[in-house]
Amino acid sequence: MKHNIETFIGCDAEYEDAKVVLFGAPFDSTTSYRPGARFGSAAMRHESYGIETYSPYLDRDLVDLNDKGEYDGIAVFDSGDLELPMGSAEMALDAISRHTAEILDDGKIPLMLGGEHLVTLGAFREVAKRYPDVHIIHFDAHADLRNDYLGVQLSHACVLRRCHDIIGDGRIHQFGIRSGERAEWQFAHAGHTDIHPFSLKDIANLVHGDDSEGNGKSKGLALPKGTPVYFTIDLDVLDSSVFPGTGTPEAGGVTFDELRKAIYEICSNCNIVGADINELAPNIDTSGISTAVACKVLREFLLSIKQ
Amino acid sequence: MKHNIETFIGCDAEYEDAKVVLFGAPFDSTTSYRPGARFGSAAMRHESYGIETYSPYLDRDLVDLNDKGEYDGIAVFDSGDLELPMGSAEMALDAISRHTAEILDDGKIPLMLGGEHLVTLGAFREVAKRYPDVHIIHFDAHADLRNDYLGVQLSHACVLRRCHDIIGDGRIHQFGIRSGERAEWQFAHAGHTDIHPFSLKDIANLVHGDDSEGNGKSKGLALPKGTPVYFTIDLDVLDSSVFPGTGTPEAGGVTFDELRKAIYEICSNCNIVGADINELAPNIDTSGISTAVACKVLREFLLSIKQ
Amino acid sequence: MKHNIETFIGCDAEYEDAKVVLFGAPFDSTTSYRPGARFGSAAMRHESYGIETYSPYLDRDLVDLNDKGEYDGIAVFDSGDLELPMGSAEMALDAISRHTAEILDDGKIPLMLGGEHLVTLGAFREVAKRYPDVHIIHFDAHADLRNDYLGVQLSHACVLRRCHDIIGDGRIHQFGIRSGERAEWQFAHAGHTDIHPFSLKDIANLVHGDDSEGNGKSKGLALPKGTPVYFTIDLDVLDSSVFPGTGTPEAGGVTFDELRKAIYEICSNCNIVGADINELAPNIDTSGISTAVACKVLREFLLSIKQ
Amino acid sequence: MKHNIETFIGCDAEYEDAKVVLFGAPFDSTTSYRPGARFGSAAMRHESYGIETYSPYLDRDLVDLNDKGEYDGIAVFDSGDLELPMGSAEMALDAISRHTAEILDDGKIPLMLGGEHLVTLGAFREVAKRYPDVHIIHFDAHADLRNDYLGVQLSHACVLRRCHDIIGDGRIHQFGIRSGERAEWQFAHAGHTDIHPFSLKDIANLVHGDDSEGNGKSKGLALPKGTPVYFTIDLDVLDSSVFPGTGTPEAGGVTFDELRKAIYEICSNCNIVGADINELAPNIDTSGISTAVACKVLREFLLSIKQ
Amino acid sequence: MKHNIETFIGCDAEYEDAKVVLFGAPFDSTTSYRPGARFGSAAMRHESYGIETYSPYLDRDLVDLNDKGEYDGIAVFDSGDLELPMGSAEMALDAISRHTAEILDDGKIPLMLGGEHLVTLGAFREVAKRYPDVHIIHFDAHADLRNDYLGVQLSHACVLRRCHDIIGDGRIHQFGIRSGERAEWQFAHAGHTDIHPFSLKDIANLVHGDDSEGNGKSKGLALPKGTPVYFTIDLDVLDSSVFPGTGTPEAGGVTFDELRKAIYEICSNCNIVGADINELAPNIDTSGISTAVACKVLREFLLSIKQ
Amino acid sequence: MKHNIETFIGCDAEYEDAKVVLFGAPFDSTTSYRPGARFGSAAMRHESYGIETYSPYLDRDLVDLNDKGEYDGIAVFDSGDLELPMGSAEMALDAISRHTAEILDDGKIPLMLGGEHLVTLGAFREVAKRYPDVHIIHFDAHADLRNDYLGVQLSHACVLRRCHDIIGDGRIHQFGIRSGERAEWQFAHAGHTDIHPFSLKDIANLVHGDDSEGNGKSKGLALPKGTPVYFTIDLDVLDSSVFPGTGTPEAGGVTFDELRKAIYEICSNCNIVGADINELAPNIDTSGISTAVACKVLREFLLSIKQ
Repeated sequence: MKHNIETFIGCDAEYEDAKVVLFGAPFDSTTSYRPGARFGSAAMRHESYGIETYSPYLDRDLVDLNDKGEYDGIAVFDSGDLELPMGSAEMALDAISRHTAEILDDGKIPLMLGGEHLVTLGAFREVAKRYPDVHIIHFDAHADLRNDYLGVQLSHACVLRRCHDIIGDGRIHQFGIRSGERAEWQFAHAGHTDIHPFSLKDIANLVHGDDSEGNGKSKGLALPKGTPVYFTIDLDVLDSSVFPGTGTPEAGGVTFDELRKAIYEICSNCNIVGADINELAPNIDTSGISTAVACKVLREFLLSIKQ
Repeated sequence: MKHNIETFIGCDAEYEDAKVVLFGAPFDSTTSYRPGARFGSAAMRHESYGIETYSPYLDRDLVDLNDKGEYDGIAVFDSGDLELPMGSAEMALDAISRHTAEILDDGKIPLMLGGEHLVTLGAFREVAKRYPDVHIIHFDAHADLRNDYLGVQLSHACVLRRCHDIIGDGRIHQFGIRSGERAEWQFAHAGHTDIHPFSLKDIANLVHGDDSEGNGKSKGLALPKGTPVYFTIDLDVLDSSVFPGTGTPEAGGVTFDELRKAIYEICSNCNIVGADINELAPNIDTSGISTAVACKVLREFLLSIKQ
Repeated sequence: MKHNIETFIGCDAEYEDAKVVLFGAPFDSTTSYRPGARFGSAAMRHESYGIETYSPYLDRDLVDLNDKGEYDGIAVFDSGDLELPMGSAEMALDAISRHTAEILDDGKIPLMLGGEHLVTLGAFREVAKRYPDVHIIHFDAHADLRNDYLGVQLSHACVLRRCHDIIGDGRIHQFGIRSGERAEWQFAHAGHTDIHPFSLKDIANLVHGDDSEGNGKSKGLALPKGTPVYFTIDLDVLDSSVFPGTGTPEAGGVTFDELRKAIYEICSNCNIVGADINELAPNIDTSGISTAVACKVLREFLLSIKQ
Repeated sequence: MKHNIETFIGCDAEYEDAKVVLFGAPFDSTTSYRPGARFGSAAMRHESYGIETYSPYLDRDLVDLNDKGEYDGIAVFDSGDLELPMGSAEMALDAISRHTAEILDDGKIPLMLGGEHLVTLGAFREVAKRYPDVHIIHFDAHADLRNDYLGVQLSHACVLRRCHDIIGDGRIHQFGIRSGERAEWQFAHAGHTDIHPFSLKDIANLVHGDDSEGNGKSKGLALPKGTPVYFTIDLDVLDSSVFPGTGTPEAGGVTFDELRKAIYEICSNCNIVGADINELAPNIDTSGISTAVACKVLREFLLSIKQ
Repeated sequence: MKHNIETFIGCDAEYEDAKVVLFGAPFDSTTSYRPGARFGSAAMRHESYGIETYSPYLDRDLVDLNDKGEYDGIAVFDSGDLELPMGSAEMALDAISRHTAEILDDGKIPLMLGGEHLVTLGAFREVAKRYPDVHIIHFDAHADLRNDYLGVQLSHACVLRRCHDIIGDGRIHQFGIRSGERAEWQFAHAGHTDIHPFSLKDIANLVHGDDSEGNGKSKGLALPKGTPVYFTIDLDVLDSSVFPGTGTPEAGGVTFDELRKAIYEICSNCNIVGADINELAPNIDTSGISTAVACKVLREFLLSIKQ
Repeated sequence: MKHNIETFIGCDAEYEDAKVVLFGAPFDSTTSYRPGARFGSAAMRHESYGIETYSPYLDRDLVDLNDKGEYDGIAVFDSGDLELPMGSAEMALDAISRHTAEILDDGKIPLMLGGEHLVTLGAFREVAKRYPDVHIIHFDAHADLRNDYLGVQLSHACVLRRCHDIIGDGRIHQFGIRSGERAEWQFAHAGHTDIHPFSLKDIANLVHGDDSEGNGKSKGLALPKGTPVYFTIDLDVLDSSVFPGTGTPEAGGVTFDELRKAIYEICSNCNIVGADINELAPNIDTSGISTAVACKVLREFLLSIKQ
């Protein structure tokens, strides 16, 4: 009789075989408004059995062989949730960093499920050590560029600012942002980050270097091919109707299809060296649609990764 | 003093006068994920008093006379909910079949409110007996084409497959589908069903035989005029933000207006000989918007039927 | 040690300095379907601390100085919620009228937070006394033009009809309407009100007098410049997915961005002399997105007002 | 095919045969705190199918014949819910009075399901006309003896005071009371009502005239045999843990078994000429236990009535 | 890096070492009223990390050594949830029987977590094969003695009747029962089962054969020492205030402390050869207290088992 | 027109006149299980308008004059909620300490509303500085005596241990405790604290020094008269049915009446120099009974304080 192993659906590879290692970071101590992101990663794992392993959008399957008898999916090992101490961001981030380091040192891609957005810092700082030229692609409703929040620097509201402390100007590409205090926007507009507010439509330009939207507005340089990318998705980039189950929901966001397509653009064209999906607070949305969306986002993410 | 008769709003015709007979099939024993569709039909009836009998979209009213002093609406009799035994799909389907047969034999159109999607089988098999050339128009997020679900063939996940067992290839037209295991999609793509994934935009082509969307993609043959049609709507074809109250909500679905217009296309142009609207699980959505949407869908459906 | 003053975020002006006076009208006695609008104004005040005072859409801030060292925002005083007696619409409306009169007599703009929509009558009748040529711009899912509701004339379902009793034909401009009994639509179509169903797209025409949508459909006359306008927003004009927390949610409504832009058009171009935002019933939406949307609507409203 | 008749479980008698007539009064316009009692009577009817018609406490059944082949239960006709206008207590009370009068004039016992407690007044004033010597037995957490509530005299908080206006001192017997403003308690203690706070333990004394609790504390006179009694039960007399689904829940209340036994004492020993059970607000308790308790209370009530 | 093994807290033994084997039976297809028991076992496992492994009632710990350096607890292996097909009671029961048989054949005690109460049949029939003289001790609000429910014999409402089919008269001891149709009570009172309604107070008598309550009412024979006992606990034996999260909550039930003590009486004095704890429907109680109670019941159960 | 001052009902004194100063400490960063206590103090203030200022238990009123024309109540100033930074327990505790110090230095009694239980430390350490002989009376389900929680010492699970660090053995009197890891119970039983598990019945003995329960079990010494007492109430001492809205609900707790009476014993007999009421997490209990209970506890507390 076997032990009860629980993984995200279709993430059943052995560690040695895995290219991606999934893990949860159930921490939300610094959440300023409505807590519950601590329950996000476990909820995604539990509820993943309500979705299919097959994506009709991509015609790929996490597990089943395709018509040619080959695997579409990438091998994923799910190491479960870390045990993180509420009440100490320092200790929680250290535990995340240690786990991330182990994954990176084994030549695999860490894919962390939050938890609040601060957890990104724990993973990213290990990624940045190994890939000094790494860029961040950041999907979010909030800029997360405060220097501190009521005096606290290790806060979900400051996490991209802390990442900026590490990698400096022009390396953080923010999409979908539609909230922040004035000083955050001023910080971004001063060139410290590359901010694209309100939508994801400039993604193609970042990835391909041309103006694929045809609207003449996206003239920025593309990321050079092969640039290592850390991809952090705060799920509140989605409209609050699509994703109510999050600490600080914001109206005016993107649709699921917009997010799905943008993820595909990035994952299939960039050199992802680390990633996270965060800010699902399943307790806030008793209907469960937020968790279902998050699971579907993760499936599409995994099936989109460039192999 | 009168007995307490409860009907869906505006469905007050006497049985003899009715062209459409509404009834509920409160069964969800085979629901694999989140149950509650058993409460759908009763919730629609109770909450229907929150909507109007008048549709400003169609300028028609279920009850009130129009400016010409005529009735717009079709006469509808609501026979309430069947008493169905949880735990036996066979017995539940038999009860549905008996009720449907009675309605059909009296020359009326059965319009069933689910319950889970499996209930369609109970009604459809009676329709198919009487209309051997019947086609099915199927709106859903899920293909429902599995041969079995964990060994069970009478399952909500298999209902269109069971219908296919009865009427065979090319007679099932599926719209809005965006989930299913790989084998289901392969079954559809092998020509067993006519599948139109992700949206409802090919409806006009099916109904009118031309390419009314103008995108050159919809080249299938139209249904011959007068073809008997069984129309089954799984409300989870709607985006999960619009309709969270259902057992397996799927992001990336259609809007209410898209659904409303597609229903009008079908009901006003096809020879509807039976229909159902299913998979409202009102307990899952405590805000009540799912039930309100379902009621509005039913009102538009009733006012759209070709007379 | 100071008393615990609670205001909507950023509405901290002293009364003498204020141009706008915010107040809550926590009344919902006549709500026919699902009550709870009585909790709307207090919830907006409590939850406003979850949004920012800065609008990236407008690059304006309710509080912080802009780059030129000037205030963007208008000075707002929040006088809290009135104490209104449930069970007597007459007494509640009188209390609202008295409070509105005081604000108007001090040369300020009353901005009332409902409560159910009937509260508009209490404020509007005072506005109409002082601005006999006032027009009403009305955003809503429902026409609210019944003469009575089960015999009651002071009902949320009749509030625009009561306003029409005061100012007569052609002065009420209704947008986004998608529900009502046939008689209400007939009343509107007979020219008693200027009704623009289903969307907000004709707003530009009303405000600017041209056809800025370019679709040739909006040929009505524009409001003459300087016309005093009372602006009443029933938040159920939003789609029910965006704003589930309301007494009678209606699918098929507008998005947040559509509402935001329409509010900007009106507030930045019209002579607003009074306004209200109503029908948030926060108890109905346990996810809290409805309250968050309402707060964001109010912030955009306040930052859009023409100065 | 039959119309869809909905009744409280086991209340299927024809009107002519009925001794008790059940009806709902779905009104809560004057509720001062948390509304929803309007949904109480319908919820009880819908959810009654979750309980049995048989009481093991009493060994009686609403429907099935007992071992001697006789009916235990009393014949009950359920006339459904009245259509009451929110926003006008006067009109709502008039409609209740008319319905009650019809029942009384036909020689039957009216048993009203609230709705808020104010509805008692509509029924009681008709009872009092026909039984001038009627007493009221009142179970409640709240005294409901205010003269007015924010100036409104027709308020749920004043309903027993309005009844006192009709029948005067010493005729209202209040049990379980544990909340009220000081003036209400002073009014009661001044002898205007016979108040027994905090518990139901003095019931036996009222009914039998002796000290059946054996604690020597209950020395009041018993009701003379045959005294007509109007019995009004505000379900918030129950502890808030047992009955959370009510507008103003109060901790420190009675258990279900205490309530059940007290109801039996009264119904089996007194001459009940009218009654009501009110203040279930099912929307407030999503677990549904409050509705289930209310249904069980009603079943026990019906099976306890002296025949 | 290790796989993510999830067990009920403190149930970490290896299979070979285990005396008790825990497993979940997530099935609720026959639930007649409110479904959700399918989620019970998983919720208990997930939420068990909110309780301690130590019982201050018993001064025993599931894991930690006691003051003498010994284990208090029994070694428990948690094999997770079975994968059961909704829609087929037969197939689900077969899967439960197979799993139970394996555990029994390995000389261990099966302890099943429901799921609805019907799952008991799958486990019990295997136990009865191996222990033909087995008795059942049954805690429940409902008698579960129907012969069929709307024609279905494999129903949660019939489960003890099905067990009676196997072991016959006098072997089923029912406690806490307070609901059932008249025929069920007649069946029990005819001597087919040993029924003790409304409370657990006769447990001591059953276990010890004397009248430990001292009330002279419990004169039945005690179970002979060593009698094999199958112990089935439907958690709705608890009062609905204590345990709202269940399909058919019943007021008038026992307190947690009464249940805890009764479990200790049985587990520490009887020869338990199989057991189950069922009918937690966590989705129905969003407060989570029902799941917390269920976890605490299971911990006390495990720590009470006679070693 | 006045600013919108919000206080707990009846707590309207000016600061100079106040004997008690109420304030909220909305912090729950270290909550290990289910967060939300941060919303507790604000919810109590908002919802306090649902209870009366008069206590029929005590025949005292927070505001109204009694029959002799005197005030019963103590003058209370409500300074609102502190602004505390989530993510830093140190900074949050410092802010609490500063506020407490100010109140103490002005000769008033601080009465803090949590927030999680850790906030007690911030207030208590200031109290202990000024009253070195202070004792703590502690009502709770949990011992809160861990030395650390996953390495974190400033945790809600350690708060009484941190208080013990300050005042040492024999000064902490714990009542109602029914959960903790073995080491905590060993710590208490080793004499470091005076623990009275499972109930509040030994309170009388502590307060009066005699055995008022008459059960011969409570023979401990009473507190000497005039001993300064810090009284900390974790509301989860209540049974989880009575108080579901808390982070770690525990079955088997006390009733509201038991708590109310125990509070009266302490407040009316001891020299209270500081106090707190904590761990209401209103978001967890959508029925609102937990908040209503908490408000009633606070009212009884305020009316019980010895003057």
